[in-house]
Amino acid sequence: MQNTQVILKSRPVGMAETHNFEWQSAEIPALQVGQFLVKNEYISIDPAIRGWMNAGTTYIPGIELGAVVRAFAVGEVIESKNSDFPAGVFVEGLLGAQAYAISNGQTGIHIVDAQAAPLSAYLGILGMPGMTAYFGLLDKGQPQAGETVLISGAGGIIGSLVGQIAKIKGCRVVGIAGGDKKRDFLLKIGFDAVIDYKNEDLHSRLQEICPEGVHIFFDNVGGQILDTALLHLARGARVVICGAISQYNDMTNIYGIKNYMKILTARGSLSGIIVFDYLTRYPEGKQALSQWLQNGQIQNQEHLIQGIEQFSQALKMLFTGENLGKLLIKI
Amino acid sequence: MQNTQVILKSRPVGMAETHNFEWQSAEIPALQVGQFLVKNEYISIDPAIRGWMNAGTTYIPGIELGAVVRAFAVGEVIESKNSDFPAGVFVEGLLGAQAYAISNGQTGIHIVDAQAAPLSAYLGILGMPGMTAYFGLLDKGQPQAGETVLISGAGGIIGSLVGQIAKIKGCRVVGIAGGDKKRDFLLKIGFDAVIDYKNEDLHSRLQEICPEGVHIFFDNVGGQILDTALLHLARGARVVICGAISQYNDMTNIYGIKNYMKILTARGSLSGIIVFDYLTRYPEGKQALSQWLQNGQIQNQEHLIQGIEQFSQALKMLFTGENLGKLLIKI
Repeated sequence: MQNTQVILKSRPVGMAETHNFEWQSAEIPALQVGQFLVKNEYISIDPAIRGWMNAGTTYIPGIELGAVVRAFAVGEVIESKNSDFPAGVFVEGLLGAQAYAISNGQTGIHIVDAQAAPLSAYLGILGMPGMTAYFGLLDKGQPQAGETVLISGAGGIIGSLVGQIAKIKGCRVVGIAGGDKKRDFLLKIGFDAVIDYKNEDLHSRLQEICPEGVHIFFDNVGGQILDTALLHLARGARVVICGAISQYNDMTNIYGIKNYMKILTARGSLSGIIVFDYLTRYPEGKQALSQWLQNGQIQNQEHLIQGIEQFSQALKMLFTGENLGKLLIKI
Repeated sequence: MQNTQVILKSRPVGMAETHNFEWQSAEIPALQVGQFLVKNEYISIDPAIRGWMNAGTTYIPGIELGAVVRAFAVGEVIESKNSDFPAGVFVEGLLGAQAYAISNGQTGIHIVDAQAAPLSAYLGILGMPGMTAYFGLLDKGQPQAGETVLISGAGGIIGSLVGQIAKIKGCRVVGIAGGDKKRDFLLKIGFDAVIDYKNEDLHSRLQEICPEGVHIFFDNVGGQILDTALLHLARGARVVICGAISQYNDMTNIYGIKNYMKILTARGSLSGIIVFDYLTRYPEGKQALSQWLQNGQIQNQEHLIQGIEQFSQALKMLFTGENLGKLLIKI
């Protein structure tokens, strides 16, 4: 049986482009004892992939040249020599940007319940993005009813979930996102206001919309958006750093944050969310998010791209901001 | 009777220079009911003065052109029409850069005990710098025995006190300071190591001295020193922003902090210390510091400059880093 794999061919300078990848067709080898074969159904397109394409080790080693591009995926076990992962179960984990994956189950592969939620949800609302939004907002942000929560990258899966959870907690929610489509979507799912950073001046709009400042700034974007948001912190504000997608394409030329002293004068604090630190609490997060999803209090917006041959185009969409909600490849 | 006053003549661009000030001789007016006359003995030279010389309001309004330069001072009440501040008591507060001050006692003027400690101590170890060091380190930094504490601007009064308090708490203390004189002083008062940022490469020295990272970074300097220190945070590190003396001379061209994402990957946090927030807890801080001073566990290093005509030269020393310990003018 033939596999289709997305291989890292060269390390990108700036934006990852199609020429940095190679689509390889390869015979699937016979399973060893302890291994199982997964037929991937969805591949998760995450900003982290761009970081993993760089040389060297950050919190995990970069992807080797010639290796399958690292990515979360979800699929069905179709053949197994591992009794913990029998054929017929569905699994989620770092299964890679490929049509089929062989795993020994030892590297963070989890069985998921395909009856309880759509399979794709395990890469979004019930996966890493959902857990990031849940623990990032609630544990790091500590939202109180009546507070104003500002979210950059609000049109992405994490941003849109953070906003919806903040609304459930009684906060006023302001999103930063580019374009009318995202604005309309965010207003529809309950955001109180949206600032279109591509067409509006963030600083003056924040003065208008948040005259008393921002109590929580949940940042997925970094760069100038973070620097401007710091000018609008309310007293005691919490800045929660989740990502910096504006900077990932050129980590050698990071935008320096000039207004950090505003954290001091606001009596605020800055910290970050690393979702892996909450592994033992995932059940709590999954239960809450499942409940809200079932109640209709949260919408799980997905942006599906058809076909693994679209992998590099899909990854690019994250950085140009074209996706709305959770970006996935359907194989 | 004649007063000598340091007047703000023009707003500095960059470093404050002698031509930005005027030394004015003026007749002291007769006291109104409720007022008292203070003969200043020491004037405190603080980095904040440079910020107050700019136009506009930050946390307090800037000094008006033509007004006496705002400064903390300590002196004796020599004439009084205010029964709360009778002649013969000693007071501390924003008495200004002048030989004599008239006050109504309503603007943060406190009576101090000239028997309990040398008068100048009320501008240093028992004044704002001492309280800043005490609450900044203990409340914001939360030092634990065995942790490594890194301090920039270690040769100044706040930095040298933070280091000594951290040693009392069982920490390993590394100072950043310029020149041999400061290094010798800091090693003498118990610092475990000192990095001479003027003659050594901070990044490589931190790799050598703090291979397991820094648990608390107490920052008085900002700019590149802060940015480099962020590369060396240990897991769970606390960054306590106290000041940014490297930046105060040109607030229109602040150095942007590129490495803030290291706070995220280190699972750290950043917050600031504003000493005025601890007013109600000053008695606790003063008692602890007095005790340590009496026990010989802390040294109160002062750098005395003779004469109010040296005011602008003294202020400049803060920014060139020439002072060692608490910089004061003795009138």
